[in-house]
Amino acid sequence: MALALQLAERGLYSAHPNPRVGCVVVSEGDIVGCGWHHRAGEAHAEVNALAEAGARARGASVYVTLEPCSHHGRTPPCAQALVDAGVERVVVATGDPNPAVAGQGLALLEAAGIETLSGVLEEPARALNAGFLRRMAGGAPWVRLKVAASLDGRTAMASGESQWVTGPDARSDVQRLRARSGAIITGSGTVLADDPSLTVRPGELGDPGDKTLPLQQPLRVVLDPRLLTAPGARVVTGEGQCLVVSTAAALEESRARPLRDGGAEVVTVDPDGCGRPALAAVLGLLAARGINDVLIEAGATLAGAALEADVIDEFWLYQAPTILGSRAKPMAELALDRMAQQHRMEVWDRRVVGADQRLILKPAASGH
Amino acid sequence: MALALQLAERGLYSAHPNPRVGCVVVSEGDIVGCGWHHRAGEAHAEVNALAEAGARARGASVYVTLEPCSHHGRTPPCAQALVDAGVERVVVATGDPNPAVAGQGLALLEAAGIETLSGVLEEPARALNAGFLRRMAGGAPWVRLKVAASLDGRTAMASGESQWVTGPDARSDVQRLRARSGAIITGSGTVLADDPSLTVRPGELGDPGDKTLPLQQPLRVVLDPRLLTAPGARVVTGEGQCLVVSTAAALEESRARPLRDGGAEVVTVDPDGCGRPALAAVLGLLAARGINDVLIEAGATLAGAALEADVIDEFWLYQAPTILGSRAKPMAELALDRMAQQHRMEVWDRRVVGADQRLILKPAASGH
Repeated sequence: MALALQLAERGLYSAHPNPRVGCVVVSEGDIVGCGWHHRAGEAHAEVNALAEAGARARGASVYVTLEPCSHHGRTPPCAQALVDAGVERVVVATGDPNPAVAGQGLALLEAAGIETLSGVLEEPARALNAGFLRRMAGGAPWVRLKVAASLDGRTAMASGESQWVTGPDARSDVQRLRARSGAIITGSGTVLADDPSLTVRPGELGDPGDKTLPLQQPLRVVLDPRLLTAPGARVVTGEGQCLVVSTAAALEESRARPLRDGGAEVVTVDPDGCGRPALAAVLGLLAARGINDVLIEAGATLAGAALEADVIDEFWLYQAPTILGSRAKPMAELALDRMAQQHRMEVWDRRVVGADQRLILKPAASGH
Repeated sequence: MALALQLAERGLYSAHPNPRVGCVVVSEGDIVGCGWHHRAGEAHAEVNALAEAGARARGASVYVTLEPCSHHGRTPPCAQALVDAGVERVVVATGDPNPAVAGQGLALLEAAGIETLSGVLEEPARALNAGFLRRMAGGAPWVRLKVAASLDGRTAMASGESQWVTGPDARSDVQRLRARSGAIITGSGTVLADDPSLTVRPGELGDPGDKTLPLQQPLRVVLDPRLLTAPGARVVTGEGQCLVVSTAAALEESRARPLRDGGAEVVTVDPDGCGRPALAAVLGLLAARGINDVLIEAGATLAGAALEADVIDEFWLYQAPTILGSRAKPMAELALDRMAQQHRMEVWDRRVVGADQRLILKPAASGH
């Protein structure tokens, strides 16, 4: 199963909106077939592994990181393929909450007399597809907030100067984070101030993920009620698609037209209490479009709004060993007055990245 | 030598203003004597180790973490004691820059025909006595700045509410940091806002350091030009001594008298450019009083001034996994406008302390 998970990880940058899935076929103690899901519309992991195993799949044990599908999607059901191949035993890391599967894959196998076992290495298998599982189960994507800051929690000087707080290793790591994300959300303030492209530069991706596959550029989403983004902004003109999100009350058609002409899609969602596009509505829209993993890369205003709206699943903090001073920009505009309101987190992963440190934090269960 | 260093560490909370020194006597492969320096006025490490070794010191090898002294201080010279004991070989971790020793200890041994070797485990030996070595070599103490902050670099809410940003393990660690410090510097703002005692609570000290010895409470130093500290403040009335530092221009005798009556010592030093007691002058004063290790525990104003004055040797940052928001108090008031002015640091030590993280950083050689 550990090998199947490694195989699944090869789809980190290419499988979405489908889940990343790996599969290993073992016959008489030998690995006779390995497969993983490359990208939507192509063969599933099980089918690839069975193809490699050929006749040796008969009587074999199959290890697969996600419950085999039971429905006809763009490809025929994998559970049926396993039955047809005559395997004896199927070990699954975690169930597929997709309503079209949801236990029916395992049921189909068992009905055919195949022994099944579920829950092996379930935690890493779920982490690999957190976005897919969340979207299938509840309709929302998995949301990561990324911030690069100093020890004193600052992201840029007051002038906006910020190159570079963190070092090249941290910036490459952010490329990998972008590449696994179906969409990147930013705010119009960041677009106006920094004109970022928010695209993935394939040359900066390391392992895991197969670099021979064409890269999926994440959908770039700009929360921009007043449509201040210029049609020539890099976020619009860069490779991949750009979605500019306004609200019905704020949208001015005269500003929307040049953006659309420039290649951006302009949509409206419900406003939040401040008249900004409501984050929950934006995330719902993205889930409906098949986005599993959302990355928020934004300035203090949107980062603060995301923390306040409690939509963050993981906070990725790249921390540089430097002090930028008390005039510099805060990481999140968040107006708290009492310690009881603090946003406590739990450290989920902590590692050194070049001269910097990367923390992955999750909001504490007790919250704030 | 590693054992000698462990022995030396037992004097972490008691040896100052003397250095922490450990000594091991080895005869025919057996450890026959162990000693360490408990506190000023008592026997040095070598004498304690030789006493334990007795006649077996003759022909033995001696491992000592600091060059044996060659001068009559409060105790007779240890180098002579080693000669008298008839040892064959003396291995030293690092030299003693004390002008009264400075190589003369080793010279005395060599003149008596004893083989010497210096520089074994020199780095940890120097780190253990960084303050003593600095003071002997250059007249200034070793300065640590301690800050407990959130991920967004905040130490308290705007109201001053700050209990507790970091957890109990981090707070115990601060007790150990205080206990090894000869003096703790704070500002009048912190005294007025929080009324801290800045004393060491012996019950909270873990290893290393011998807890059977009476604890040396650090000298508490309040930078308070206008003498706003109340005579009844805990920093004045708590166990141990309190030094209130003003400037000649700012000192009002009518305010100094009640402080002195309350048990504090009131002194003046030269002002800095803003009329505050100049930190370099304060540190010079403390070195002259035999203070090796100085800890700055203060609010954003003094922390910023210390960073600006470039007097910090180590920055101890206790970081809690929480976000206090952009209204909360910054860790250091520091007015920087360009990235080129940033205070870059190098991570010297990084460890998990309960739910928090402790970073020990040193200003980067390139500085800022």
